[in-house]
Amino acid sequence: MPNSFGKIFTISTWGESHGPAVGVVIDGCPPNLPLAAEEIQAELDRRRPGQSEIVTPRHEEDRVEILSGVFEGHTTGTPISLLVRNADQRPEAYAEMREKFRPSHADYTYQAKFGLRDHRGGGRSSARETIGRVAAGAIAKKILALGGGVEVRAFLTQMHDIAVPTEALAGFPTLADVEATPVRCPHAATAAAMIERIKAVRSAGDSVGGVIECRVRGVPAGLGEPVFDRLEADLAKAMLSLPATKGFEIGSGFAGTRLKGSEHNDAFEARDGAVRTATNRSGGVQGGISNGEELVFRVAFKPTATILQPQKTVDVHGAETELAARGRHDPCVLPRAVPIVEAMTALVLLDHWLRHAAQNRVFKF
Amino acid sequence: MPNSFGKIFTISTWGESHGPAVGVVIDGCPPNLPLAAEEIQAELDRRRPGQSEIVTPRHEEDRVEILSGVFEGHTTGTPISLLVRNADQRPEAYAEMREKFRPSHADYTYQAKFGLRDHRGGGRSSARETIGRVAAGAIAKKILALGGGVEVRAFLTQMHDIAVPTEALAGFPTLADVEATPVRCPHAATAAAMIERIKAVRSAGDSVGGVIECRVRGVPAGLGEPVFDRLEADLAKAMLSLPATKGFEIGSGFAGTRLKGSEHNDAFEARDGAVRTATNRSGGVQGGISNGEELVFRVAFKPTATILQPQKTVDVHGAETELAARGRHDPCVLPRAVPIVEAMTALVLLDHWLRHAAQNRVFKF
Amino acid sequence: MPNSFGKIFTISTWGESHGPAVGVVIDGCPPNLPLAAEEIQAELDRRRPGQSEIVTPRHEEDRVEILSGVFEGHTTGTPISLLVRNADQRPEAYAEMREKFRPSHADYTYQAKFGLRDHRGGGRSSARETIGRVAAGAIAKKILALGGGVEVRAFLTQMHDIAVPTEALAGFPTLADVEATPVRCPHAATAAAMIERIKAVRSAGDSVGGVIECRVRGVPAGLGEPVFDRLEADLAKAMLSLPATKGFEIGSGFAGTRLKGSEHNDAFEARDGAVRTATNRSGGVQGGISNGEELVFRVAFKPTATILQPQKTVDVHGAETELAARGRHDPCVLPRAVPIVEAMTALVLLDHWLRHAAQNRVFKF
Amino acid sequence: MPNSFGKIFTISTWGESHGPAVGVVIDGCPPNLPLAAEEIQAELDRRRPGQSEIVTPRHEEDRVEILSGVFEGHTTGTPISLLVRNADQRPEAYAEMREKFRPSHADYTYQAKFGLRDHRGGGRSSARETIGRVAAGAIAKKILALGGGVEVRAFLTQMHDIAVPTEALAGFPTLADVEATPVRCPHAATAAAMIERIKAVRSAGDSVGGVIECRVRGVPAGLGEPVFDRLEADLAKAMLSLPATKGFEIGSGFAGTRLKGSEHNDAFEARDGAVRTATNRSGGVQGGISNGEELVFRVAFKPTATILQPQKTVDVHGAETELAARGRHDPCVLPRAVPIVEAMTALVLLDHWLRHAAQNRVFKF
Repeated sequence: MPNSFGKIFTISTWGESHGPAVGVVIDGCPPNLPLAAEEIQAELDRRRPGQSEIVTPRHEEDRVEILSGVFEGHTTGTPISLLVRNADQRPEAYAEMREKFRPSHADYTYQAKFGLRDHRGGGRSSARETIGRVAAGAIAKKILALGGGVEVRAFLTQMHDIAVPTEALAGFPTLADVEATPVRCPHAATAAAMIERIKAVRSAGDSVGGVIECRVRGVPAGLGEPVFDRLEADLAKAMLSLPATKGFEIGSGFAGTRLKGSEHNDAFEARDGAVRTATNRSGGVQGGISNGEELVFRVAFKPTATILQPQKTVDVHGAETELAARGRHDPCVLPRAVPIVEAMTALVLLDHWLRHAAQNRVFKF
Repeated sequence: MPNSFGKIFTISTWGESHGPAVGVVIDGCPPNLPLAAEEIQAELDRRRPGQSEIVTPRHEEDRVEILSGVFEGHTTGTPISLLVRNADQRPEAYAEMREKFRPSHADYTYQAKFGLRDHRGGGRSSARETIGRVAAGAIAKKILALGGGVEVRAFLTQMHDIAVPTEALAGFPTLADVEATPVRCPHAATAAAMIERIKAVRSAGDSVGGVIECRVRGVPAGLGEPVFDRLEADLAKAMLSLPATKGFEIGSGFAGTRLKGSEHNDAFEARDGAVRTATNRSGGVQGGISNGEELVFRVAFKPTATILQPQKTVDVHGAETELAARGRHDPCVLPRAVPIVEAMTALVLLDHWLRHAAQNRVFKF
Repeated sequence: MPNSFGKIFTISTWGESHGPAVGVVIDGCPPNLPLAAEEIQAELDRRRPGQSEIVTPRHEEDRVEILSGVFEGHTTGTPISLLVRNADQRPEAYAEMREKFRPSHADYTYQAKFGLRDHRGGGRSSARETIGRVAAGAIAKKILALGGGVEVRAFLTQMHDIAVPTEALAGFPTLADVEATPVRCPHAATAAAMIERIKAVRSAGDSVGGVIECRVRGVPAGLGEPVFDRLEADLAKAMLSLPATKGFEIGSGFAGTRLKGSEHNDAFEARDGAVRTATNRSGGVQGGISNGEELVFRVAFKPTATILQPQKTVDVHGAETELAARGRHDPCVLPRAVPIVEAMTALVLLDHWLRHAAQNRVFKF
Repeated sequence: MPNSFGKIFTISTWGESHGPAVGVVIDGCPPNLPLAAEEIQAELDRRRPGQSEIVTPRHEEDRVEILSGVFEGHTTGTPISLLVRNADQRPEAYAEMREKFRPSHADYTYQAKFGLRDHRGGGRSSARETIGRVAAGAIAKKILALGGGVEVRAFLTQMHDIAVPTEALAGFPTLADVEATPVRCPHAATAAAMIERIKAVRSAGDSVGGVIECRVRGVPAGLGEPVFDRLEADLAKAMLSLPATKGFEIGSGFAGTRLKGSEHNDAFEARDGAVRTATNRSGGVQGGISNGEELVFRVAFKPTATILQPQKTVDVHGAETELAARGRHDPCVLPRAVPIVEAMTALVLLDHWLRHAAQNRVFKF
């Protein structure tokens, strides 16, 4: 099931950019969770196009409808089906893409794989697919917060060559700090520079990428599995499953490869009655299993493939040609990707929490 | 099944460092493949401890025994069970670890998760677990080569602060180049420096990490799935499931975040009757699906956690203490990790190939 | 994913009897299949309430809407989301069930499992859930017929104590014969008696069960897996996953336990250039794998639990009480279960076909 | 993974009848369970050939070796690998089967599926594969008994045309009653007749089948999932995955199809402070979920396919020929199938228990 994610708390997304709707089915949600559409809507609004002057102007309200699994305001333990109608479709803007493959998009690979494709707005490869992830992630975040005291926070640390100063990243950023600017960078001065950069590249018909960092606090020690389903392995998969991502690193990451073991190891210490580490180069995970420290990882996003400059390409008949995108797009996807990163993180954590409990907490000998 | 990997060609590994044996069960192997234990052994020998002067001296022949699934020299389509006995066990070297958690190892997290642990040599968290992966990967590599003309090549591009010069990485390295030195870096001058570095840190009781790059040629366009099971997502998971890994990047990776879209996009061109890209910042994958170009990705490995210097830690009773590893270990895991990276890559590609064919090549309308 | 079925061609159903809608998401459908909503509708109409005088009068048109996965009349290989709105809801008819557990229904067990339940019309346990199965099965049947020449035919062989004479079941019944009467028994005289029986028990506020037989012709030898995923094992699971089923048997079934091996074995013979069996007590499966003969199996359905006579029961507070169903219901579920049995059979066969091909037909050595 | 079973407590079996060994890997076993090889051996001894005068004389001690997952007498939560060496192989007895397909065996279908087969003793289709199931089931039974107070009891109710009188089946049979005779029928007079029948058919070179009933007491209400993974659906799959099975029925089964709803429904009553049913035609499951009553189901086994009389068949070249089995075999598989049925039942129940807890017992709102 390539369109499903998770083993116990499982989501299955469906829908194309210019089809009638997109949606998600959530299987395995614990029963009796209070849940209102508004709570899901709040997260969707963070992902929504048209939310600020620096994102795509495609006008979508992205109103979510709960079709099943909730009765009298509480989850029932049965599948939760969520639906969002597509409204502001402009397939005519994509007429040229019926014939031509957009560079660094999924047009050619879908054609190669399936032998046909819905070319309108990228079809299934559109980031509108992530609506289902964010909607499901809203539920996962609520369960983690309500049931486990876990807080997930993603934010921009770098856009193009503008990066938050290292010393500014010491504390756990508040949601208010992140949401203070439309770029979702909690460091005000950096955020201002990022906004300027977006405006500049948009004027030039160009685009930029960057890095999102995600931190999670409140994760108990013990989540994640030995061997293949390590917590960082599933986080890496979750992040690389997002459109436009090119890299993932946890804790010390690539920079840590330049340290010696004596510099890199996190010494254990007894603190507040618990086993804690003095440093956190491990990023909250050791041997694939959470150690109770803050989870810290980063995700690399390439610059948006859609640019408004003419590009060389090939058409479906194999002939070389040229193409200049029209269509609406984000000159930088990262501000809207922040809630998506949080959603996927919450989905991974919740699923591992449930798996851990199933194996280790049901029967005690 | 946290100890299984793959959906159609599935492997399940088992075993602890100081138990009687380690092994793997492979389910879903195509029938009628000629297969001899020697072919598997050849890959295990590349992973084997004691293979050169720069790796751990633990003496293990790692002889593989085929227990099922092969009849008269051919696979039968039924599960292939492979067994490797552990020989050179020295549990006494780990007596201290029964009580003390080794920093940046999995000792504490296993204890937190399961409430008990096999402390000898790290138990299940030992890299001996990867024997099963390499053995299964040998079969996957053979199928890909024989059936699909695919070649997988991993090698060191960086150790500590020693990196292969960028211009030296243009071509597809030969196996002979990689195997020419015990560090498995195909650039001779860099390899020599790396060997010196390993010897130096070993003398100091310290350790180093680095970066392994993996390239694959011959991958047809069309492998990988939209959305969650993108090819790069499954590669990222596979790599982050390896001990000591902290990061993954494909194509332009983290460096690509500093380019503009107009600089980053891979223009399409018609070449040799095929749709090809002029550059390969995508790393061979677009929209989660292979585009027929060379796959290129990199994996970050932290410095070995086991060092021979005294470290601060905590014991199982919560008291602070100090620990200095004895036991045999690798001052740098990367040379032995090269065949493991290749094995996991082959497993991901073969599984995706079979999945792709199942959905797209069985019924044609 | 308890609400999903199949490994490569996977369906996920969702929805409650009295929620806004029910639906299904199909993942893994081969691309380029011509598909129109009308084709799905035709099968839904066979399952629809109100289709004849002998079934429940609940008025539902059960109009299916294709929300994704189909572009310009062809499947795209991406998830197909199908939606059917619930129309004729009468929750007030179920007010009593909020407090009282209906005997031999799922009311009590859902309450025990989840701690709450949507009591209206049985919620998720309603047979309206099977709409998604029939819709997905319509697609599976089309693929099997178009791509594989496979024909699936289910029909009633027994209702209460009225059974089709054994000798009347020799040939493969035509769809016309099955659809000739509203009970879907291809033997006219038996069908007439069954219709009378339904009318009689309905008048008495009672209900009846019976047996559906399913036959499949055109199945190639080789489908099904050794060991756990035997073809008959997956068929048994599929059938026992249907509401009101209590038994499954294939080929000689329970009656075959009274034969000796010398009487039961199916001798092989060479016929028309193929290896065939002289008899078919195996029911088309040997060692879990299809042998090219007709698949033949039977499914036992208990009498409908909803009856209009007063019954003793217990309420949610644990007090004994009495209950007499109102609500609309079928005095016999079997006529409408015929297309559901066919749908599940097609889903099992298609999934196994794809799995078989993935392992055995992609790489040839 | 066709050779794996279970979602949380998962077993993967491997091995052929005349290969070096058979075995099983268990993933997901709760940690800290006291476990000794002797406990597993006790169940294997109930399945072992040569255990009595009425079963096959193949001489196998079936000694189990624990290769991983157990440390100092307790499970560690990591995979448990169990190995049993094949000892008494007589491949020469199967030389004829290299060329000829045995009627109603899996020879032909394996050949059709895989294009080759290990013909010795049926290879993978041999009932020796069930050794792994029984070994894993021994652990599952222990967990259910120790952690949940659940007791699983299977026994013969019918062999050929000899059946236990209905009134003799009222109580829950003791293990001693079942093990009192080598046929494992707890009703002494019937058991004696069955033993005579086995001897008679063996003398005639023939074979017989029959019915095994399984009952489980102590199952809490709430196990099983709505829709596809109903408890009876997974039990049906488990049973039909066993060699030689042709049918499954739960509670009233096929006979219940001849009752009216008013006769069949199980009235609820308040008993001992719990919601209970006055009768148990449901067999302990309603709407796919356990209701706290005794689980009761039956499994039909066909007569052993191997008989010592000459039979018509076809060879691998498609020519008609004749074959008379030599090789050792059971004239009736049911006595040795009793522990296998219990093992599969325990595996289904434990897996559902863990799944239920994961979804419903971890987070409480």
